[in-house]
Amino acid sequence: MTAAPGNDLIRKFTRIVGDAHALTDQFAIEPFVFEQRGLLPGRSPLVLLPGSTGEVAEIMKLAAATGTAIVPQGGNTGLVGAGVPDASGSQVVLSLRRMNRIREIDRASNTMTVEAGAVLQDVQVAADNADRLFPLALGSQGTCQIGGNLASNAGGTGVLAYGNARELCLGLEVVVPDGRVFDELRKLKKDNSGYDLKDLFIGSEGTLGVITAAVLKLFAKPKGREIAWVGLSSPERALELFSIAEDKAGSSLTAFELINDLIVGFTVRHMPGTSNPLRSDHPWFVMIEVSSHESPDHARGTLEGILAAALRQGIVDDAVLTASIAQFKAIWRLRDNMSESQRHEGFSIKHDISVPVAAIPEFIATAGPKVLEEAPGARIVCFGHMGDGNLHYNISQPVDGDRDAFAAKYREINSVVHALVRSFGGSFSAEHGIGQLKRDELLATEPPVAIDLMRRIKRAIDPSGIMNPGKVI
Amino acid sequence: MTAAPGNDLIRKFTRIVGDAHALTDQFAIEPFVFEQRGLLPGRSPLVLLPGSTGEVAEIMKLAAATGTAIVPQGGNTGLVGAGVPDASGSQVVLSLRRMNRIREIDRASNTMTVEAGAVLQDVQVAADNADRLFPLALGSQGTCQIGGNLASNAGGTGVLAYGNARELCLGLEVVVPDGRVFDELRKLKKDNSGYDLKDLFIGSEGTLGVITAAVLKLFAKPKGREIAWVGLSSPERALELFSIAEDKAGSSLTAFELINDLIVGFTVRHMPGTSNPLRSDHPWFVMIEVSSHESPDHARGTLEGILAAALRQGIVDDAVLTASIAQFKAIWRLRDNMSESQRHEGFSIKHDISVPVAAIPEFIATAGPKVLEEAPGARIVCFGHMGDGNLHYNISQPVDGDRDAFAAKYREINSVVHALVRSFGGSFSAEHGIGQLKRDELLATEPPVAIDLMRRIKRAIDPSGIMNPGKVI
Repeated sequence: MTAAPGNDLIRKFTRIVGDAHALTDQFAIEPFVFEQRGLLPGRSPLVLLPGSTGEVAEIMKLAAATGTAIVPQGGNTGLVGAGVPDASGSQVVLSLRRMNRIREIDRASNTMTVEAGAVLQDVQVAADNADRLFPLALGSQGTCQIGGNLASNAGGTGVLAYGNARELCLGLEVVVPDGRVFDELRKLKKDNSGYDLKDLFIGSEGTLGVITAAVLKLFAKPKGREIAWVGLSSPERALELFSIAEDKAGSSLTAFELINDLIVGFTVRHMPGTSNPLRSDHPWFVMIEVSSHESPDHARGTLEGILAAALRQGIVDDAVLTASIAQFKAIWRLRDNMSESQRHEGFSIKHDISVPVAAIPEFIATAGPKVLEEAPGARIVCFGHMGDGNLHYNISQPVDGDRDAFAAKYREINSVVHALVRSFGGSFSAEHGIGQLKRDELLATEPPVAIDLMRRIKRAIDPSGIMNPGKVI
Repeated sequence: MTAAPGNDLIRKFTRIVGDAHALTDQFAIEPFVFEQRGLLPGRSPLVLLPGSTGEVAEIMKLAAATGTAIVPQGGNTGLVGAGVPDASGSQVVLSLRRMNRIREIDRASNTMTVEAGAVLQDVQVAADNADRLFPLALGSQGTCQIGGNLASNAGGTGVLAYGNARELCLGLEVVVPDGRVFDELRKLKKDNSGYDLKDLFIGSEGTLGVITAAVLKLFAKPKGREIAWVGLSSPERALELFSIAEDKAGSSLTAFELINDLIVGFTVRHMPGTSNPLRSDHPWFVMIEVSSHESPDHARGTLEGILAAALRQGIVDDAVLTASIAQFKAIWRLRDNMSESQRHEGFSIKHDISVPVAAIPEFIATAGPKVLEEAPGARIVCFGHMGDGNLHYNISQPVDGDRDAFAAKYREINSVVHALVRSFGGSFSAEHGIGQLKRDELLATEPPVAIDLMRRIKRAIDPSGIMNPGKVI
């Protein structure tokens, strides 16, 4: 087990980063120990803000020598408590925020080399300024950091065409638990020289090492992006529409989001500046984005072709295409504000699940009655990345119902939904990870062989268990 | 260390698969112990051909209990000796060839579930029959098996747009060294539930377990594919052309191959039915393929746009577009026969290297003189997947030179080329893997931290060292 650092040790850690970059004042520490929803209050005696990979390595060497638990932290926007310390008060937070340089953009190789603390939006803007696209896009992009995105293998709205954070990373620099530096900042699309260590660190939520820098993939910037907002009667119709969209757009299909009417209503009601692009009522909506390397007109033509075929087959009931950049932004604003809008409707029990794409309609049809049996009057919010099989299936408390009574059903409703997800061969953590919040459930429900392999790997790479203990495994 | 199985043990292994599927006759065993180039002659007392995952699990349990080394084998088309036993005569070969069923095609989810022994070409055809594309494409596709493709993280000509074998796999079934089955045949594009075990098995060349089945990604089938064959003066011009092609085609750019005149000459000379599509002479050629989800005309239009811009800028000297399916196939035949053609020009010292895309011209300019200093008169063949930074940089012996004298320079020339590759931040094994052939070099040149991490993982998952010993690490 790890031990809380005494004053002597705190002084030694402080000397590595300098007084100005070691926080011991509890008021200063507070932002680093609470995750954003406040569900998992943590404590820490010390927050370190190193300025270089060398300092991170020194910190880990001292931690290894003294059995001190280290919690790496990025923008602290995670949803499962992977980046905050536990309540023991013994874990030291290592924040990467000062290491935020963009080291290099290589336009010919289509790569960007960045430090872990670079904010996602800054990375997007730097790519854009170099006439390139970095396609990772999340609600928290103004705050979250690329190191955290990689440690959690972030998803978001760009996954359909460009992949998860994992697929967007070519090389990594990681400080491993004994303080050595794993330096593979390679710009290579093909490299079969031994085991895939990079992908082991990606998604391991800081439990195998501290990501300090990465080589990211860039893409040629599309010349046009257009959106259609479609009203339809059911997820079955949405699946048929998805099939047409894939056939006609292929890899130009850059978003396909399925959204139920309830969350559109929440968003329009609570989030200023949002509106439903369609005048008529529909139980379900789909937002389709097509990108083109030719022109906005070409993207629009592809979208029109998709909608024409879908209308002919009676799949969609109504649809609107964006006629201006303002309208394009308005639809994305509607989509991006959905998660936030739920706060205004009382307590919600959230699920970040994935199932095979083909199973989405049946999952939705089966899950609803089961949830309502547990929580009569609850309101089912369902939206997400249909093309990735990933739904945010969030249950809002009944109107005028008792908040606490509903909140108390958290575990039962989780169990019902996750059991159903497993029966479809799905995942109960599609993009948010495991952290503290879902650790017990991972251990209880993942096949024992997988758990055993993960434990063996954890012990092999972090034998003294100092690297973000209590998370994932 | 592992021990050679005695007659008793051979009988026990045989009982698992049945007499008909256990080979002990040395004549029958021969095809399983020689890799295709005959560089690494192996021996084995027993070849097992299990018919099910359950039988593979039984074999591994017995192997674990008795300390018997097991060598998993697919189509035995690998180029580094990863799938053949060593010369000790103690290693048992486990061939997956009987496990070749396509278990399911899920068109709506765009997935195919296959057993490891399915031949790549059969997988391609099955996808095509379901109006889908499985884009992995290799010279050996008529023989190689999907399990071997995944174990070696195969590359090939489709990587630019669709990724390596790794990116084409959503889920795996693996028998781990103690005989338990890791069963994650998931059809999920997003799954952040714990460490990425799948990608650890992929590319581990059978040293961490036996891949028995996989869920593969399928894609909407393009409606048109067109090729341009371009003559130009240098790799610098090719890099400029690549930049234009990416800008104008984006993800529709499905191949960009750089080829020198020497290998075109070899191929046309030795391989029946091949010809150079251009009449004029050029020191370098580029083959560009564009795919379209609209029509052949649209693909052609995109290609014409690329070539028009390149001609305007004086980047290309001559170009021809395919005017018929026959011509399309003829150009691919020319490309696919390049590797084979080198055999007819005497001994060749091959390199499967990758460097950052931007470094390709400088690598080529620097490598040539260094190689010729070591081997005056040698002929430098250079072709490969420029968009992936991956070159087959193969040195053919001097005309009328002494074969053996040239072959004796194998190590020196390897050293020169690989040292240069490292200086560019490249990889000395871009797509073929490590196996037996490159193991010493991996251990000698990879950063010690990476080697140490790989060894820890190997020990954690295969503590008794029975899983394909002597390969990779």
